Amino acid sequence: MNTFGLKFRLTTFGESHGKAIGCIVDGVPAGLDIDEAYIQGELDRRKPGQSDLTTARKESDRVEILSGTFEGKSTGTPIAMVIFNQDQKSRDYSNIKDLFRPGHADFTYWNKYGLRDYRGGGRSSARETAARVAGGAVAKLMLRELGVQVAAGIVEVAGIESKNYDFDFALQSKLKALDPEIEPAQIEAVNKAKKSHDSVGGAVLVRATGVPIGLGEPLYHKLDSQLSAAFMGINAAKAVEIGDGIEACRVMGSENNDAITKEGFASNHSGGVLGGVSNGDIVTAKVWFKPTPSIFKEQKTLNTDGEELAYKLQGRHDPCVAIRGVVVCEAMMALTLADMALLNMGAKMEYLKKVYAR
Amino acid sequence: MNTFGLKFRLTTFGESHGKAIGCIVDGVPAGLDIDEAYIQGELDRRKPGQSDLTTARKESDRVEILSGTFEGKSTGTPIAMVIFNQDQKSRDYSNIKDLFRPGHADFTYWNKYGLRDYRGGGRSSARETAARVAGGAVAKLMLRELGVQVAAGIVEVAGIESKNYDFDFALQSKLKALDPEIEPAQIEAVNKAKKSHDSVGGAVLVRATGVPIGLGEPLYHKLDSQLSAAFMGINAAKAVEIGDGIEACRVMGSENNDAITKEGFASNHSGGVLGGVSNGDIVTAKVWFKPTPSIFKEQKTLNTDGEELAYKLQGRHDPCVAIRGVVVCEAMMALTLADMALLNMGAKMEYLKKVYAR
Amino acid sequence: MNTFGLKFRLTTFGESHGKAIGCIVDGVPAGLDIDEAYIQGELDRRKPGQSDLTTARKESDRVEILSGTFEGKSTGTPIAMVIFNQDQKSRDYSNIKDLFRPGHADFTYWNKYGLRDYRGGGRSSARETAARVAGGAVAKLMLRELGVQVAAGIVEVAGIESKNYDFDFALQSKLKALDPEIEPAQIEAVNKAKKSHDSVGGAVLVRATGVPIGLGEPLYHKLDSQLSAAFMGINAAKAVEIGDGIEACRVMGSENNDAITKEGFASNHSGGVLGGVSNGDIVTAKVWFKPTPSIFKEQKTLNTDGEELAYKLQGRHDPCVAIRGVVVCEAMMALTLADMALLNMGAKMEYLKKVYAR
Amino acid sequence: MNTFGLKFRLTTFGESHGKAIGCIVDGVPAGLDIDEAYIQGELDRRKPGQSDLTTARKESDRVEILSGTFEGKSTGTPIAMVIFNQDQKSRDYSNIKDLFRPGHADFTYWNKYGLRDYRGGGRSSARETAARVAGGAVAKLMLRELGVQVAAGIVEVAGIESKNYDFDFALQSKLKALDPEIEPAQIEAVNKAKKSHDSVGGAVLVRATGVPIGLGEPLYHKLDSQLSAAFMGINAAKAVEIGDGIEACRVMGSENNDAITKEGFASNHSGGVLGGVSNGDIVTAKVWFKPTPSIFKEQKTLNTDGEELAYKLQGRHDPCVAIRGVVVCEAMMALTLADMALLNMGAKMEYLKKVYAR
Repeated sequence: MNTFGLKFRLTTFGESHGKAIGCIVDGVPAGLDIDEAYIQGELDRRKPGQSDLTTARKESDRVEILSGTFEGKSTGTPIAMVIFNQDQKSRDYSNIKDLFRPGHADFTYWNKYGLRDYRGGGRSSARETAARVAGGAVAKLMLRELGVQVAAGIVEVAGIESKNYDFDFALQSKLKALDPEIEPAQIEAVNKAKKSHDSVGGAVLVRATGVPIGLGEPLYHKLDSQLSAAFMGINAAKAVEIGDGIEACRVMGSENNDAITKEGFASNHSGGVLGGVSNGDIVTAKVWFKPTPSIFKEQKTLNTDGEELAYKLQGRHDPCVAIRGVVVCEAMMALTLADMALLNMGAKMEYLKKVYAR
Repeated sequence: MNTFGLKFRLTTFGESHGKAIGCIVDGVPAGLDIDEAYIQGELDRRKPGQSDLTTARKESDRVEILSGTFEGKSTGTPIAMVIFNQDQKSRDYSNIKDLFRPGHADFTYWNKYGLRDYRGGGRSSARETAARVAGGAVAKLMLRELGVQVAAGIVEVAGIESKNYDFDFALQSKLKALDPEIEPAQIEAVNKAKKSHDSVGGAVLVRATGVPIGLGEPLYHKLDSQLSAAFMGINAAKAVEIGDGIEACRVMGSENNDAITKEGFASNHSGGVLGGVSNGDIVTAKVWFKPTPSIFKEQKTLNTDGEELAYKLQGRHDPCVAIRGVVVCEAMMALTLADMALLNMGAKMEYLKKVYAR
Repeated sequence: MNTFGLKFRLTTFGESHGKAIGCIVDGVPAGLDIDEAYIQGELDRRKPGQSDLTTARKESDRVEILSGTFEGKSTGTPIAMVIFNQDQKSRDYSNIKDLFRPGHADFTYWNKYGLRDYRGGGRSSARETAARVAGGAVAKLMLRELGVQVAAGIVEVAGIESKNYDFDFALQSKLKALDPEIEPAQIEAVNKAKKSHDSVGGAVLVRATGVPIGLGEPLYHKLDSQLSAAFMGINAAKAVEIGDGIEACRVMGSENNDAITKEGFASNHSGGVLGGVSNGDIVTAKVWFKPTPSIFKEQKTLNTDGEELAYKLQGRHDPCVAIRGVVVCEAMMALTLADMALLNMGAKMEYLKKVYAR
Repeated sequence: MNTFGLKFRLTTFGESHGKAIGCIVDGVPAGLDIDEAYIQGELDRRKPGQSDLTTARKESDRVEILSGTFEGKSTGTPIAMVIFNQDQKSRDYSNIKDLFRPGHADFTYWNKYGLRDYRGGGRSSARETAARVAGGAVAKLMLRELGVQVAAGIVEVAGIESKNYDFDFALQSKLKALDPEIEPAQIEAVNKAKKSHDSVGGAVLVRATGVPIGLGEPLYHKLDSQLSAAFMGINAAKAVEIGDGIEACRVMGSENNDAITKEGFASNHSGGVLGGVSNGDIVTAKVWFKPTPSIFKEQKTLNTDGEELAYKLQGRHDPCVAIRGVVVCEAMMALTLADMALLNMGAKMEYLKKVYAR
């Protein structure tokens, strides 16, 4: 089940330390300009090693398009993209080969599949999110043509909350932080965790502007439902809120309802979704990431023979996965909206008649 | 897109005030005892009019099985269930016919589809969740055979949190509350909202015990991802947390990681899921419901001609939808786990050889 | 897997002698006039007992719409339809309860599911095709709005081939025959089989006119591929040809290629499909049905205890299932084309821009 | 819609003259030995340039596995395979750039997508079938573990039918012919067509032995239905027969029914499928291929400006595509059966209890 989406479909492959990772994006309408530099730029935003706040693992993450475009445009056929792994053989994994790292998928994959690729987490590594970002970039290109823009940034780290949201600032912040005033304290928290060989969690605020009214397929493919699946499926995500989320559930109905006026909604507590369908307002969600399970303190665990042991991780790891999660959240938002935009085309006879007019 | 699940599949139909609502459950393995009284019992737990805390709307919610069973057992063919609406013609909807109730799907459905069934919310009514509960009951019967039990209860209302969780108490509490000591305060909050013609939100804690290790299909059909979709798709849900959820994102990695011992996990911050796959521990999630948008205070809105107006709702409505959401959360958990149990059967050659041994 | 289609989706339920059969049609665009009399009329065309050429089983096949329409129009929500079985208890099945009728699904269902509903074939009965016809009627209503018309008729019975095709004649022929001159010989062949307690096979020619260019989703959801699945999935179907079919495979390429002219294709050997996509010409297919396996001669078989025995069927059966297959072929053609029409809406950016123009 | 299968899923990409073609095989159970040499061997059987009967186009068709295996075994994660195109730039396509080759997808792709990759047919080229063969080889490896073997051969060319079927002979015949005595006449027909700048059609007989009883998911994912979709989706296929196919439809029911005995079925007219489910006998199908549309005689057609013209194709083409279709038919049979084997695992509670026994 390595396919995301019903009509705009991303299928991915690849392990952290295999030959390559990549994806096939199927269902892209023909005639879309495929800007390769833009796609590469999105991957560059996600790639590790960009600051002291993220893992030192070096990957050029150079993406190559193998199919689906012709003379710079999508042709309606599957767009395959591949990123060959360069850091593939640089590590010795014998120390974790036979044990289950706490907080990781080691234990569950080993039990589910009866074997596992232990090199850097194999398929369960966050490295896989590069393929999501590549696919998400194509989705963004399509959405842009419809006037939809997706943006995200760090809204909380280690319990330190942002007060103001500046999505332009996030683009240049090394933490991808939304609030310039809070950013220093958040950075300090990450560095402190790093120095104490520990890790911290955080949250990403992600939004889409310009979303047409009507996206979302009730009842079991609602926009908010599928956004939740999209975000919770990212490595280390533990909670998803739509709009005001939990806060909305602690106020009275009279406070939470968004009044409807000629100029649009008077407030946006709903996060741009009513009844599972976009209402034309800004679509917003908050995605919560747990602290990186990879820490450099001693931990208790089992090995594959069922023996208890204490182990201490070595290597390079993000002290706060939420940071690189920002770009991945954008990608998942874009993939979901692109799918919904295509699915919604069958909503009414009026649309069919427009398309099939002779 | 009114189908939930890939292999254990629920397809539902029906509007709040149409002739009937119902569902087809496809993919149920043959040879399962289909206990009709149990299914009816689940519907009775959800149905309105059971206490002064829920809507006074009267529906017997009598379910009838039309197909898929023979001599009390499932036959491997689709199980269709229907509930005929009895309260169908009792209301005059002319007052809301031409306006968009704030917080409801009226505005989005009307824009998406170009028309809408305004009677009681039509398809977007919470009445539809009865069909989910019927399907969920079949899923529970199947899961029971595998040793899996699902339970849920109210963990917060109007910001008043439960401290202890007693799932047996929830079965008898009219609030379906988990904490007997907090229940009175929570009930009072609901009643207070009701008296002031307003509404309150709340949260449901839902869990499954006895879940085999290995359920969840990475990467885009992870257990936690699909649970999120399942829960966020319920009417009025605004946030989903897995395991410790947001709290997990505010502690250090060394505190959040669950140590692995011979006796199992030393803690369960993860909520029973690692890498999107069940780890054998109790699967837990928290589902947050906004306050019912149907309130009896004057609100500003638009009508279908685009004119602003103030309106005051009349009729019968739950002051706190989270209460009846408890049974629906159980149903969605069960449907998701049943689907995952079937999907996981192809995980390794060992399973194929067991099934196809000659 | 009782769902047909990806976007225009038919999910069916019901056994031959259970309480009811029926379907949910999901994905119907909102704003379509749902003509109930037309749907009933289609069911009447299929129902048994209309002439001495089909089974004497009496079923009124009265269809009731339970949901998905409002004030005569589709609302974009699932359209559920139910047909209650009237002939439900009229038979004693003790004679076939424990044996496997040759040529039927008894043996395979019993082995696959470990049990079976032996009453009249249960789910595997051709009675289920009534639900396809109901769903197909909705598809036809949608296609009609796009200028597409579907028709079918008997083109061969017992090896006796039609020479000319008159689809209007088929509508009134009791054999649903296409060729008025050949019809008498074909009827005689059916009657002869019936008198000798045997059965005959036949073929249906089905076509769609007015199909827009571009329907079909390469590479694994081509129009011809999905039509084949649709037709071969009908009870008793054993072969499917597209366009000239086998004949096309016995001539030279220079004879088979359809030359393209300003006025359209100079011939239509292809059956209106090139590369899996409709080419604007008439879409044609031939569907072959085996002789009814239910015959009244003695046959050798096994019982569920593995013992050999000879048995002689009793009851009422079609001597030639192809006849009633005509209406079912039309339904499957319509369902496939309706799905393809919706799927094709995402083919190019031009369509998205039309739909999402602001 | 470039994905085939529901559980054992093949997703392919690539154009005839793009950088690469390839596939992702998802849903392969973990622990399967992935024999790369075997996969390459299957590709070698399909590749062009092996005899004077097929196209002279040279492609080494060297396949590279990028993911999904570890230490020689499948890991349960997606297996990506890529074949880089070598013959990519060797042609000048300016002569067909602006015209629609009769019998090809040029006309329909151009109309559907608004543009097209004209180099060698782009995505619609039979070159794509190499990706099917790669995926099919993995399916065969899995099926082999369950005792299932797939084989195929040419049963008719240019109207010249084989009388006897020798599947071992087909493995060494340059025509992949089933009948050693008829082979010379069939080869002569191909050569004659080639010399006259024309092409011929043919038919492939494909079968699977050792298929367990119970494969096939009624009602809309029957084994025969999905085999038909699989075969008809191959380039140039125009008809599919299951078992005796059309012949079965021309005899009496008493002749066509397969009697059931203690030793199994007394005959196999059904082709191993009853009610859409495998009955334990040999599964057989016949797939009909039209004559290659690429011929070297002058043909009338249109260009993209809508002007009529006459053109004469140049280049290298198979005079009979059915020959290389043999290996592709095997692949599609294997992919379908592998999918069905996984899907059937949820058929009865007995299987679930075997897998989830604690």
